Amino acid sequence: MTSHAWTRERCEALDVADPLGQVRDRFVVVPGEIYLDGNSLGALPRSVPARLAEVAEREWGVSLARSWGEGNWFAAPERVGDKIGSIIGARPGEVLVCDSTTIALIKLLGAALGARPGRNLVLTTSTNFPTDLYAAAGVAGLLADIEVRRVDPDAIVGSLDETVAVLYLTHVDFRTGEMLDLAGLTSEAHRAGALALWDLSHSAGAVVVGCETNGVDLAAGCGYKYLNGGPGAPAFLYVRREHQEIVANPMPGWLGHEAPFEFVPDYRPAHGVRRFLTSTPPILGLAALEAALDCRADVSSEQVRAKSVQLTELFIAALEERLPGAFDLASPRDPDRRGSQVSLRHPDAQAIVQALAERGVIGDFRPPDVCRLGFAALYLRYVDAFAAAEQLVTLMETGGFAGPT
Amino acid sequence: MTSHAWTRERCEALDVADPLGQVRDRFVVVPGEIYLDGNSLGALPRSVPARLAEVAEREWGVSLARSWGEGNWFAAPERVGDKIGSIIGARPGEVLVCDSTTIALIKLLGAALGARPGRNLVLTTSTNFPTDLYAAAGVAGLLADIEVRRVDPDAIVGSLDETVAVLYLTHVDFRTGEMLDLAGLTSEAHRAGALALWDLSHSAGAVVVGCETNGVDLAAGCGYKYLNGGPGAPAFLYVRREHQEIVANPMPGWLGHEAPFEFVPDYRPAHGVRRFLTSTPPILGLAALEAALDCRADVSSEQVRAKSVQLTELFIAALEERLPGAFDLASPRDPDRRGSQVSLRHPDAQAIVQALAERGVIGDFRPPDVCRLGFAALYLRYVDAFAAAEQLVTLMETGGFAGPT
Repeated sequence: MTSHAWTRERCEALDVADPLGQVRDRFVVVPGEIYLDGNSLGALPRSVPARLAEVAEREWGVSLARSWGEGNWFAAPERVGDKIGSIIGARPGEVLVCDSTTIALIKLLGAALGARPGRNLVLTTSTNFPTDLYAAAGVAGLLADIEVRRVDPDAIVGSLDETVAVLYLTHVDFRTGEMLDLAGLTSEAHRAGALALWDLSHSAGAVVVGCETNGVDLAAGCGYKYLNGGPGAPAFLYVRREHQEIVANPMPGWLGHEAPFEFVPDYRPAHGVRRFLTSTPPILGLAALEAALDCRADVSSEQVRAKSVQLTELFIAALEERLPGAFDLASPRDPDRRGSQVSLRHPDAQAIVQALAERGVIGDFRPPDVCRLGFAALYLRYVDAFAAAEQLVTLMETGGFAGPT
Repeated sequence: MTSHAWTRERCEALDVADPLGQVRDRFVVVPGEIYLDGNSLGALPRSVPARLAEVAEREWGVSLARSWGEGNWFAAPERVGDKIGSIIGARPGEVLVCDSTTIALIKLLGAALGARPGRNLVLTTSTNFPTDLYAAAGVAGLLADIEVRRVDPDAIVGSLDETVAVLYLTHVDFRTGEMLDLAGLTSEAHRAGALALWDLSHSAGAVVVGCETNGVDLAAGCGYKYLNGGPGAPAFLYVRREHQEIVANPMPGWLGHEAPFEFVPDYRPAHGVRRFLTSTPPILGLAALEAALDCRADVSSEQVRAKSVQLTELFIAALEERLPGAFDLASPRDPDRRGSQVSLRHPDAQAIVQALAERGVIGDFRPPDVCRLGFAALYLRYVDAFAAAEQLVTLMETGGFAGPT
C-alpha cells in the first residue's frame, strides 16, 4: 500500500485532526446513514427547531404584528443576506434574502438587461440548470427583442461580443459538479462590456466564491443546499454595491419602496440592495435559514472548501483504486474544476443509487445516467466518505444493484 | 335603552350562542389584549408550532430530501391551495400556494395580458394597495405598449372598453375596508371582453368571495391576514379552470414544468394551475399555513362573514351612540359594502392608535389619518368588540390620546 492510499485508519486520523470535526455535532445526523445528498437538501441544524418555536410562539403568537417594528422581522432580508454575504465574499449591504431562486434570477436578468440598453443577448450554456433556462426564456418572452443563446461551456468566451448584455452562468453544474472559472469568465464578460450574473446554488456554502474579489456583478442562489436553510428556503440575491443605484428591480413591490409605510401610489426604489425586495418577507423561512447560518458563523468558506476537496478526492481515489473503469467520472478529475460533488455515469445509475440507499448511503439520480453524490463538509466525516466508497465497491462487486429483470 | 342597543350583557349572550365561540380556543390569545390587527397579521393557531416542529425534526431532519417524494412536500402547493380554494369558493385544482402576493399578482397580470392580445390597458383604481400599483407599473415597464390606468372606484365601469385587457382590482380596500362589487364588476369586465383579476388579500378568510359563482378569472391574495398563515406566509393564486390551458406563466420555472425531474432544457408547462409554480415551494411556510387552514376546516366563510358583520356593526353602532361625530367613518356604513374592518378618520389617528394599544386594544394606523381596526371573527368575541368600543369611548372622552405638545 502506497503512502497516498486511503485507508479507514487514515480517515479516522483526519477526522481527529479536522478543524471542522465538532461542527458536525451541530447538525442532525441520521444514525446508520451517510447522507450524500446535502447538495439537494442540506441537513437540519440542531438549533433550527428551537428558533422556529421561538419565532412562532413568541414573536408571532405574542408580539404579533408588533414584531415587524420591535422585532427583527423588517430587517431580516438584509441581516440574513449579510450573513450569506460573508460566505460568498460579498460586502455588507450587497446580499438580500428573498423569493425563490428562479424569481431572484428573473429579477436580476431583468435588471441586467435594463442596465445594458442596446444589447439584446443573454448568453448562457446549454448545460445550465433547466430552471435557469426557463427563467431566461420567460424574460425573453416578456421583453421585446431579447434573445437567449445557449452554447457549450467551452464556447462561452468565443461567444462574448458587443451584443451580449449579460453572461448568465451557473458556477457549479448541478449534474456534473463542474465548476466554471468564475473570475476569468466574469473578467471576459466585462471585457465585452457585459454584466456577469452567476447562479451560486451549488456553490454558496461549499466552495469559495469571492464575489467582491472576482468582480461579480449579480448573483443569486438557493438557501436549502449547502446553506442548510431547510426545504424551499428563501433564496438570496447579490447586487454589487457599485451597481445598486443604477439597476432597477423589474418586480417592484412595497417592501422595496423607499418609504413603504407611506403607502403612496407611485414607486420610489429604496436605496441599496433592498430595492430588490418585493413583498413581505417569509419570516419562518428566514428564521430557519438564519439559525443555519449562525451555526456555521465560525467556519470559513476556505475551511469548508479544503475539506470538501479532500472528501471528494478520497472518494474518487478509492473508486479508481478498487473499481477501475466501473464508472465514467462525470465530474472533473481536477479538484480545482470540481465543486463539492462527485457524479458517476453508469447505465444502471438509477438502480445503483437505489441499492446504495438501501445500504444507508443516500445520493441521488439525475437522468439519464448519473449517480450524484454530494459531500457537505460541515457534517460529513472522512470516514463517511471512505465508508461510502466501500459500500459502492461492495455493491458493484456483488452486482447487488440489479433490479428485477 | 332601545331593544337594539348594544350592551355587554347582550354581547355575552351572543358569545354563548356563537357557533364559532369554541374556534377561538384554537388560537393563541394574548391575555389582557383585544387584537384588532388580524387584518395585518392573523393570530397564531395553537396547532402551528407542533406542526412546524414535526416538519423540521422529522420530515426535514430525518427523511431529508426523501420527503419530496415520500412526504407531502411536492404536492403541497396544490393541496394547501385547495384548502384555500374551499374558503374563496374555488373548485379543486384552481388555487396554488406560492411566492408572495406581489409576485403572484405580477404573474397573473402577465398571464392576463398574454391572454388578451391586441388590448393594451390594465384598468385599476387609484386607491388600490400600493404594491398592486407598483406591480402593474413593473409589468408595464417590461412589456411594450402596456398602459396602466388608475381611476376612482366609481369610474371603473365607465372606463371599461375594448382596450382593457384586464380589470385589476382589490376586493376589500386596505385603508377603508370598502368592499367592491366583485360579482358585478367581474361581469362588467366580461361584457367589455376583459379579464378580471382580483386581489383578495383583505377578503380571503373574512368575507364570502365565491370565485366560481361570480365568474372570477384570476385572483391572488396573502396567507398571513385572515388565513393566519404567519408572518410573510406564502401567497395564493387562483386561475379559473376554463383558463388554465390558455394562460401562460410569465415566470416559468422547473417546478411548473410538465416533467420537472426530466431536467430538460426546454420548458413545457404542467397542466392545470401547477404551471404557475416557479421554484421549490417554501415548505416551512406552507406547513404553518396548512395547519392554520386545517384548524378552521369546519367553519364556513358564511359563518365567518355573518359574525364579522355583527362585530363591525356593534362596534360602529356603539361609537355612533356614545361618540357621535367624533370620527369620520372611513368604512362604508352599509355592511354589504364593508369588509371585516372599521376604519375611522381623525386628525390624531396615530396618537389614538398608540393610546389604544397602551390600553390593550391593538389596531393600526394608516397615513394620513386612519385608525384601522380589523375584526377577525375566528378569535374575536362580541364582548371584545364591545370592550374595544368602550375603551375608545373612554379614551376620547378623557382626551387620553394627546401626545406631548
